[in-house]
Amino acid sequence: MDAEARLDLNRSSRIDLPEAIYCQSKTPDQCVSIVARLLEGAGGEDAVVATRITAEQRGPLATLAPTASIDGATLSTMTWRHRGPSGATAAVVAAGTSDLAVAGECRLTLQAMGHDVVPLTDVGVAGLHRLMDVLPELEPVDVIIAIAGMEGALPTVLAGLVPQPIVAVPTSVGYGTAFEGQTALMSMMTSCAPGIAVVGIDNGYGAACAAHRILRTATSGQSQRPKS
Amino acid sequence: MDAEARLDLNRSSRIDLPEAIYCQSKTPDQCVSIVARLLEGAGGEDAVVATRITAEQRGPLATLAPTASIDGATLSTMTWRHRGPSGATAAVVAAGTSDLAVAGECRLTLQAMGHDVVPLTDVGVAGLHRLMDVLPELEPVDVIIAIAGMEGALPTVLAGLVPQPIVAVPTSVGYGTAFEGQTALMSMMTSCAPGIAVVGIDNGYGAACAAHRILRTATSGQSQRPKS
Amino acid sequence: MDAEARLDLNRSSRIDLPEAIYCQSKTPDQCVSIVARLLEGAGGEDAVVATRITAEQRGPLATLAPTASIDGATLSTMTWRHRGPSGATAAVVAAGTSDLAVAGECRLTLQAMGHDVVPLTDVGVAGLHRLMDVLPELEPVDVIIAIAGMEGALPTVLAGLVPQPIVAVPTSVGYGTAFEGQTALMSMMTSCAPGIAVVGIDNGYGAACAAHRILRTATSGQSQRPKS
Amino acid sequence: MDAEARLDLNRSSRIDLPEAIYCQSKTPDQCVSIVARLLEGAGGEDAVVATRITAEQRGPLATLAPTASIDGATLSTMTWRHRGPSGATAAVVAAGTSDLAVAGECRLTLQAMGHDVVPLTDVGVAGLHRLMDVLPELEPVDVIIAIAGMEGALPTVLAGLVPQPIVAVPTSVGYGTAFEGQTALMSMMTSCAPGIAVVGIDNGYGAACAAHRILRTATSGQSQRPKS
Amino acid sequence: MDAEARLDLNRSSRIDLPEAIYCQSKTPDQCVSIVARLLEGAGGEDAVVATRITAEQRGPLATLAPTASIDGATLSTMTWRHRGPSGATAAVVAAGTSDLAVAGECRLTLQAMGHDVVPLTDVGVAGLHRLMDVLPELEPVDVIIAIAGMEGALPTVLAGLVPQPIVAVPTSVGYGTAFEGQTALMSMMTSCAPGIAVVGIDNGYGAACAAHRILRTATSGQSQRPKS
Amino acid sequence: MDAEARLDLNRSSRIDLPEAIYCQSKTPDQCVSIVARLLEGAGGEDAVVATRITAEQRGPLATLAPTASIDGATLSTMTWRHRGPSGATAAVVAAGTSDLAVAGECRLTLQAMGHDVVPLTDVGVAGLHRLMDVLPELEPVDVIIAIAGMEGALPTVLAGLVPQPIVAVPTSVGYGTAFEGQTALMSMMTSCAPGIAVVGIDNGYGAACAAHRILRTATSGQSQRPKS
Amino acid sequence: MDAEARLDLNRSSRIDLPEAIYCQSKTPDQCVSIVARLLEGAGGEDAVVATRITAEQRGPLATLAPTASIDGATLSTMTWRHRGPSGATAAVVAAGTSDLAVAGECRLTLQAMGHDVVPLTDVGVAGLHRLMDVLPELEPVDVIIAIAGMEGALPTVLAGLVPQPIVAVPTSVGYGTAFEGQTALMSMMTSCAPGIAVVGIDNGYGAACAAHRILRTATSGQSQRPKS
Amino acid sequence: MDAEARLDLNRSSRIDLPEAIYCQSKTPDQCVSIVARLLEGAGGEDAVVATRITAEQRGPLATLAPTASIDGATLSTMTWRHRGPSGATAAVVAAGTSDLAVAGECRLTLQAMGHDVVPLTDVGVAGLHRLMDVLPELEPVDVIIAIAGMEGALPTVLAGLVPQPIVAVPTSVGYGTAFEGQTALMSMMTSCAPGIAVVGIDNGYGAACAAHRILRTATSGQSQRPKS
Repeated sequence: MDAEARLDLNRSSRIDLPEAIYCQSKTPDQCVSIVARLLEGAGGEDAVVATRITAEQRGPLATLAPTASIDGATLSTMTWRHRGPSGATAAVVAAGTSDLAVAGECRLTLQAMGHDVVPLTDVGVAGLHRLMDVLPELEPVDVIIAIAGMEGALPTVLAGLVPQPIVAVPTSVGYGTAFEGQTALMSMMTSCAPGIAVVGIDNGYGAACAAHRILRTATSGQSQRPKS
Repeated sequence: MDAEARLDLNRSSRIDLPEAIYCQSKTPDQCVSIVARLLEGAGGEDAVVATRITAEQRGPLATLAPTASIDGATLSTMTWRHRGPSGATAAVVAAGTSDLAVAGECRLTLQAMGHDVVPLTDVGVAGLHRLMDVLPELEPVDVIIAIAGMEGALPTVLAGLVPQPIVAVPTSVGYGTAFEGQTALMSMMTSCAPGIAVVGIDNGYGAACAAHRILRTATSGQSQRPKS
Repeated sequence: MDAEARLDLNRSSRIDLPEAIYCQSKTPDQCVSIVARLLEGAGGEDAVVATRITAEQRGPLATLAPTASIDGATLSTMTWRHRGPSGATAAVVAAGTSDLAVAGECRLTLQAMGHDVVPLTDVGVAGLHRLMDVLPELEPVDVIIAIAGMEGALPTVLAGLVPQPIVAVPTSVGYGTAFEGQTALMSMMTSCAPGIAVVGIDNGYGAACAAHRILRTATSGQSQRPKS
Repeated sequence: MDAEARLDLNRSSRIDLPEAIYCQSKTPDQCVSIVARLLEGAGGEDAVVATRITAEQRGPLATLAPTASIDGATLSTMTWRHRGPSGATAAVVAAGTSDLAVAGECRLTLQAMGHDVVPLTDVGVAGLHRLMDVLPELEPVDVIIAIAGMEGALPTVLAGLVPQPIVAVPTSVGYGTAFEGQTALMSMMTSCAPGIAVVGIDNGYGAACAAHRILRTATSGQSQRPKS
Repeated sequence: MDAEARLDLNRSSRIDLPEAIYCQSKTPDQCVSIVARLLEGAGGEDAVVATRITAEQRGPLATLAPTASIDGATLSTMTWRHRGPSGATAAVVAAGTSDLAVAGECRLTLQAMGHDVVPLTDVGVAGLHRLMDVLPELEPVDVIIAIAGMEGALPTVLAGLVPQPIVAVPTSVGYGTAFEGQTALMSMMTSCAPGIAVVGIDNGYGAACAAHRILRTATSGQSQRPKS
Repeated sequence: MDAEARLDLNRSSRIDLPEAIYCQSKTPDQCVSIVARLLEGAGGEDAVVATRITAEQRGPLATLAPTASIDGATLSTMTWRHRGPSGATAAVVAAGTSDLAVAGECRLTLQAMGHDVVPLTDVGVAGLHRLMDVLPELEPVDVIIAIAGMEGALPTVLAGLVPQPIVAVPTSVGYGTAFEGQTALMSMMTSCAPGIAVVGIDNGYGAACAAHRILRTATSGQSQRPKS
Repeated sequence: MDAEARLDLNRSSRIDLPEAIYCQSKTPDQCVSIVARLLEGAGGEDAVVATRITAEQRGPLATLAPTASIDGATLSTMTWRHRGPSGATAAVVAAGTSDLAVAGECRLTLQAMGHDVVPLTDVGVAGLHRLMDVLPELEPVDVIIAIAGMEGALPTVLAGLVPQPIVAVPTSVGYGTAFEGQTALMSMMTSCAPGIAVVGIDNGYGAACAAHRILRTATSGQSQRPKS
Repeated sequence: MDAEARLDLNRSSRIDLPEAIYCQSKTPDQCVSIVARLLEGAGGEDAVVATRITAEQRGPLATLAPTASIDGATLSTMTWRHRGPSGATAAVVAAGTSDLAVAGECRLTLQAMGHDVVPLTDVGVAGLHRLMDVLPELEPVDVIIAIAGMEGALPTVLAGLVPQPIVAVPTSVGYGTAFEGQTALMSMMTSCAPGIAVVGIDNGYGAACAAHRILRTATSGQSQRPKS
């Protein structure tokens, strides 16, 4: 309808989150055009994140300078112009290998915002010892993102073991009664373990944003509005 | 409509389960009449189980001889004329104190069928050490009934730790997204741990029957039809 | 079944959250007994929180020393032995007066854990200026808890305006298509604004715990396990 | 079954809405045949609207005279023989670029009925200033059609800011908890802002018809049945 | 939490709708206090509407001057200080006598805003002739509010017969598969008749507001913002 | 697993319905093999019906003697060896052209059982006069099958106008809130018109069987078991 | 709103079903007034049926002459002025004693329309022999109404054994996953046995009306419109 | 993320179930790599099971030594290195031919664990005699796995006839109200027959694991932890 997309150009200064492009329902040309405008500085100089990139969109987007970082496992997330190191660290914990697509989107977004990421996979609660084995790796992190499909019990078990903020991400992994992630979602919302906060199904980007809001707090010792 | 209820009088010889009376939608007189007929030997001499007994029904039912066993915690399950000892043992494991109403119905039904019961409570997965502490008590049992509401993760964690048959019972404990037990039910059906079998929400009686079918196998070393 | 509840006595040293008693499905005696054991020091010396207190339970619980703090608006939350000041601040923002029961549970739990609370009410998005008017009050807070029923749009609008962590709580306020809070829940999970983390319907206590996990990060500048 | 479709040929004189062809489950030949009959004057001389046109149907339909208007963005809506100017104006407001397919169907239908359309896009509530910026453009319009997917908060915020009739259209944009538009639908039906009227998911044509019924009122100052 | 409710005092000048009080979850004192403040002129001089009044609240509210209008059938809606005549007319059409509670809330709200109301009841589509008989009474009205529970077919049939704007209200009348109004709601949203706009289940007040937005258009011939 | 399908060979003599093959999840070879066995007289000499035939299965099935009748419109239903005329008549009434696939399956099945069929299409209730026009054609029929998608109001309106048995079939026609036929199904089950009986979504074959059970009654004046 | 209910007075001559009063949401006075008008001959001389009568309404209704027939088991259905014998017979088959409330409403309605009723209870499929035992009683009946709650398997088993028309009624009997009758409803709609027609949950009156439409066919040998 | 999958290598000694690979969301290389590692003895020497194998994965997996067993019917399940004979027997009973894909996954998994399998197909309850005919074949088995789609009544009927443990598997067979297996699932959970235990939709592997847990009990006469 309008000639071009009405970008939310001052999002970064308002809420300290970089502009993100959700590619799924856009043409390759639309994606390239939006990312290019942002890289040219519309809205200021900040990181740029593109998610749900299709095979058809990947090539054209990869040509945009400065060089994009691509999630090696899924190839569906790309980021440009990362922020400098924040000094904060997030763990991205995935229950199974099938959850890696969501984990990749989450990890690359966090890295674009300058955070260190500790990735951990295959720690589903059906083999509890695997989770117990990696608990020491979780001790120094500032926030934990727990990603699980099927019955989604991982965040519940984690929340009973560690004191950090936990952002839970239900995934659409599984079949039958997994109901495309609804069972994991409801399980996480109803957890008997206290203090789990949940984002939408398969929403790795949203989890990274929620974690970033928390990590800002961790690094400043006090929340502060971005300098505009 | 008919003068009196058409009881399933040969159920015991057919499937080796005693007749049970679901009291909830019956008058006290109807309950007493059905239990009395069974105690007088209609359908043979077997244990009798009444579940979902209301306060109003409890008094009249308690007068029926031989003396009834009443679940002390909930007062809503009564049994008469228990079978002799089977030599088999079931653990009835409840995640929280709110699950005790279902656990009581399950335990008393198992005892009426002659089985030993090991009751364990408050072993929810939010404090995993409580479950770990009782694992040795589970080793000698033949079947485990795992009862949990809210997100229902207990059977999943258990099934990754022990080799026995696990009958999972979702309960309607919780509020909001617990959805009257639906979340626990779906979580259990979708478990990432292999070999969990599930019965209906709050159905302690059904879990006991499923366990009994299994325990018959355990005690005989081979399934055999009841002697008719 | 067991003689008494198996309390999670070292929860505080493990995950830095005080023991909480969910009173709804317990007798007054059970509630008093559990709270008394905790106040006597079982599990160490920490704050104690009781939620979903009924009218019948309120009197007996109020007699327990040291004196309880009671949520004045709802009378359904009580706390004992608050922690010392954390130096951190949370805003508890409720869309309408009908959301105050959830807000009260949330606020008192946060105060028991030593945090300052900025309460804001009647800032629903149907009259946007009311929300705009209170934005300055939100600037200095470390975390925002946004509570809303009906269509649950408040967290979405907030998340587009401020950079802090936002914990959203859907409430069962409304009728018809509010579906006991499901519509608000799903709306919050599907928000077009980035970085909202959601807890269960009406779960003010859970929101406070999620906020506390975040505030620990804010006050220490780095997550650290509680001293055991 | 019957030789040819039983068209509702006097719909225009009865309810003042032109005949519309829903192409999705029809063959190209069926679509062409129905549109041709209408253009030849079966049912009188009025505008003709075809929606949900597939790529396969587009070519054959485009050859029908008088020349069709095609929605440039989606190519899935075509109209023939527009009515003369009504003097009324509708705003078609879409929250995001992904909602443009629905917006296009809506806009072209309105234009076929003779109304002016003010199109506005990318005014989602996550960046509230974008909506605030276009409020002046909404002042002179007679009715507002508000189109949004995901959590569907746009109509709620609009309804608190402007006095005109608002027809809300939920779209199936989003993934996971968007539930193919159900979340947006329920959110709109449950709005805390008064006086929003909602049509079905992705139903741009239906929204245009609802708006037209309203615009007839606006232009005549009083409802009147079409001259038969 | 706050000392008193944060009323949306300039709603009337902003969107031309009077302040309304949803009484269901408030104490009698809270209701009286809010209505009294509005009648004293907080927010200007406009009509005041209170809905979902309980038996306990009715007495205290009735004493507030100027004298309240009470819906005679349901006693659950009260209005004060009606606006002057608008010159516009709305029909409030209810499928059955069980829908009258919703119809009453709708009618009294419309009258408070100065509109004439034509009430019609018991015109369900199972006896189609009853609807056909009242069609002449619908001809002069400017907008039609169609209220129905169960399968909710009334608006569909109406929308095929008349050209006016139709605001459909699903009600929770019925049992079993009526699903508390969901079936009627979904039926109305999916209507094969073009141009029906729907409000929430049992939301008579919301329907009146939607109708008022339309009637403003009818009486002015062109939308205009309220004089502020 | 087994060498070949365990056919229900005496179904015809038991319940007077011919064997039917649901082709959707079978290979072409499996379909041909089953139909061939039935045509060779396994289970006696009766009509044979195959439904949900795919394009791939159609060719091989068409070669089986005696020659098959194929539904001309959908090509997805085939029948062999029709029964002799029953003397009874069914109307198959479809709301829209999109419902013709279901109508065809229904009609051909009825004809295979020897019944006359009156087909009527495009009589949706949005243009009520179309239905009124065909009422005389319905007068002599013994049973009416009413097929509709979207909001499914056709059976409700019909049931208020005619005294015959009505078998309603919801179809998956529509999009968005049509929910693949659920809305039509629930609408039909909740009808305010008395005496509608409903079969499953898109189940034209089931509707024909239900109608056949009724027509047996009509032709004999009294139910009688088939001669075995 | 209107002075008195707009009764569907010529329903009997149009569709051959007597007027019925659904009492649940009416006052005792409203019920008495409507029944009295019908008994005085408004709408002609036909049977009158009142369903869902509450304890409060029962007394006043019982005084209306001619003397009412009351369902002895439930006291919630009353009928007046039965039609003469039709010569047709319906079986009303209930799976369990808990289904008797629905069975009673169904039976008394059928009797008011002049049909003989064969009542059968406690023939649930968990004890299949009970159903097998009563098969001979079903042979002479013209139509079978099969009533079941819980998993609702009774109609499926019946439909594989007998050739008559089967009207299935799901009931809200059961708890947990019975979901107030939804599970039984969906099970019946999805039956693998051909030709089951289903009415709404707990809708005994609707089942009787569906059966009556069928029985008219059985007794006349050919459908005929009622003499008007 | 991690270099390679974190396999649950001691599952066999912990819970006596072999490692299984769920292939659906993995690349052929990933599948081959995991199976190869297991066959090389990582985690000890035990059977290996791969399920949901795609056509693309089948070839590469078939080359792995020792030679794989492939389910002949579906080609989607492969097993390697079967355990020695357990002496126990399971019946795998499928209601229809469409359920064979699930039955095959179940059967091959059981055989890999050393159990004998009695396969029975096409014994759906719509033709009850087929089930009655095979009852003698069920007498000697230790556990019964009952697989059914559509309305899922098979386990209910079976559980009323035989005393053995019954593991029920709902399948996604059917269309419309089958709701991808949900109707069968809910029907099985709500069964009026006592002692049915249910696994997830289409989860043949899970049913085999549940049966194995039971069969261990049958063969040892007493549960015992696997020798580690």
